[in-house]
Amino acid sequence: MFVREPVFLLDEAKCRKNIAKMAGKATSHGLILRPHFKTHQSAAIGEWFRQAGIEKIAVSSVKMAEYFIKHGWQDVTIAIPFNTRQAGRLIKLNQAARINIIALSDEIPASIGHSCEPALGVFIEIDNGYNRTGLLPEDTRAIEGIITKCRKNPAYRFMGFLTHAGNTYSARGYDEVKAIHDDALNKLFTLKQKYAGEAGVICSYGDTPSCILMENFDGIDEIRPGNFVFYDIMQENIGSCSMEDIAGVLVAPVLAKHPARNEIVVEGGAIHLSKDFIIDNYGRVNFGYPVLLEGLDWQMPDRESYIRSLSQEHGVIKASEKFFNAVSPGDVIGILPVHSCLAAHQMRAYYTREGNYIETMNS
Amino acid sequence: MFVREPVFLLDEAKCRKNIAKMAGKATSHGLILRPHFKTHQSAAIGEWFRQAGIEKIAVSSVKMAEYFIKHGWQDVTIAIPFNTRQAGRLIKLNQAARINIIALSDEIPASIGHSCEPALGVFIEIDNGYNRTGLLPEDTRAIEGIITKCRKNPAYRFMGFLTHAGNTYSARGYDEVKAIHDDALNKLFTLKQKYAGEAGVICSYGDTPSCILMENFDGIDEIRPGNFVFYDIMQENIGSCSMEDIAGVLVAPVLAKHPARNEIVVEGGAIHLSKDFIIDNYGRVNFGYPVLLEGLDWQMPDRESYIRSLSQEHGVIKASEKFFNAVSPGDVIGILPVHSCLAAHQMRAYYTREGNYIETMNS
Repeated sequence: MFVREPVFLLDEAKCRKNIAKMAGKATSHGLILRPHFKTHQSAAIGEWFRQAGIEKIAVSSVKMAEYFIKHGWQDVTIAIPFNTRQAGRLIKLNQAARINIIALSDEIPASIGHSCEPALGVFIEIDNGYNRTGLLPEDTRAIEGIITKCRKNPAYRFMGFLTHAGNTYSARGYDEVKAIHDDALNKLFTLKQKYAGEAGVICSYGDTPSCILMENFDGIDEIRPGNFVFYDIMQENIGSCSMEDIAGVLVAPVLAKHPARNEIVVEGGAIHLSKDFIIDNYGRVNFGYPVLLEGLDWQMPDRESYIRSLSQEHGVIKASEKFFNAVSPGDVIGILPVHSCLAAHQMRAYYTREGNYIETMNS
Repeated sequence: MFVREPVFLLDEAKCRKNIAKMAGKATSHGLILRPHFKTHQSAAIGEWFRQAGIEKIAVSSVKMAEYFIKHGWQDVTIAIPFNTRQAGRLIKLNQAARINIIALSDEIPASIGHSCEPALGVFIEIDNGYNRTGLLPEDTRAIEGIITKCRKNPAYRFMGFLTHAGNTYSARGYDEVKAIHDDALNKLFTLKQKYAGEAGVICSYGDTPSCILMENFDGIDEIRPGNFVFYDIMQENIGSCSMEDIAGVLVAPVLAKHPARNEIVVEGGAIHLSKDFIIDNYGRVNFGYPVLLEGLDWQMPDRESYIRSLSQEHGVIKASEKFFNAVSPGDVIGILPVHSCLAAHQMRAYYTREGNYIETMNS
């Protein structure tokens, strides 16, 4: 392959297949698919979603909302508790597209005042037990405070309830994901019934493992998975995808081999992959699976070989005998990333198997 | 403070103090200080080193070498096993500045051929037991293969031996660092004596903990610490610096508070801080210490409050009662990073307490 330094290589056909599959599932369940674009952060990849019929998106910062609105997206949820320091930028953005924010108290959107026209959509985030952000479903006082605020203030339009069941990321397999999912659904369903009197209240639900593995979405109107466009080792470890579904690898030049310990060192470190790791099926702290490349295609991993450590630029691979013998310094290999969202963010651009160079908002 | 989104805030005075202290130590031990510039990756910060008398630097990629040479640095060691795919760029760079590379076998620099003029400096990396890269000190065949190659080929100039005692990063306190350091010194000293017949052979030695904590550098000619300009929680945890020495914080907007569990959520996640963590003195997985800001100054951490988890953009702080009560959504706080090199790389630019905006090669 042509590269001199690490690059993120995508298989566009796999990405489009992953998008089509999720879009098909959403349609068959009567759900809106509002994919989270923080995974790829790219207008060009956004077009692949648009061509699959997607019109609504989620993002994780006001800056990301600005970028995608500039590229024609007209319905954007900023799926992180609203940063009141961004009120000025938000009011401006709201004139260009339909925006939804997340409120956790009736004070949060105060900085917007009465100046939003059209009204800003307000989701109340519910904590399903993941304990990152969100109100507890039983926190009636705070929930009703926000609803009342929206009712009284024409700058806001109450949209409903939103949750991210991020605790599925520490689940393994169908049963563990299902337990978390059913509990989250139950909480959202109860709230939806309780506040059914509010006009157009919907429930928006996230996380890739649930959206992939589950079939029951009773009470849910919208899903917001993100990672499924690329997938990664973490999703494979949870059980949400197969190795074949993973649509991106870091291409890394081989710098050194150490025969005494079957180790290969690549230029491909924390600044390329991030320091996210999984505990794999062998109980190893695993920063990614190395794979052999054939031109712009990559083989499947042997699973014995894995990245045992990452420093700023170095990746150290503990290799199987066969993998060790197959590569030499000066070659490039692929690394299936543990967390594709973070690797993509760090790499800031993509090359595709199909021969294109793709920029992101960070290029 | 003025910011709307996360920024990396530096205390220039502390950075300059950290530089001066290391430069003074190097001078008093008769050592060349060749600081590793991967920590800051900034031409402007490079000038602070230059003003402290520094003339030689280490970098971790050919791209970084290009950037600093463009900014006037004339003596650069690319302190990572040489990526032969970069041979073309290297030959060009070598015409603009004095370059040293790392070789691990007599094959590595083959792509350079006879075309380097002036000769390229070649360090042999020695593995001190850290087991990342480098030849074992007893691997006489490989070592002499490289030396012979350099002697025969006018494109290369044998420089000596280089090691990075990266295993000090898992040490705690003086005694553990000293055991690693003494062993590394012994290995380098033996090699230096053995190959004393080679013209001008030197020993280059790295890692911030050793360079800070140790006083014996017998046989060493050059030190290559990097992190000491900023320091971080990891260095504080090892014992290489005090909290007061840490010269940078991530400034992060507060998004939410959860009184039931004394947790604060900030916009400040894996894409800002990296996912590096320490196991702190309380046995906690700790992604950073939150601190209160007073204008552009930051207070010292209470150590009870810490970042318990990071996702892509969210940081979740488990806070002491006092810290919890001191901040509200809409405020900004500081976060002392676990690993300042990675946080700096991700943030790509700095603001200083002294009122300046500083770009990096990634801005």
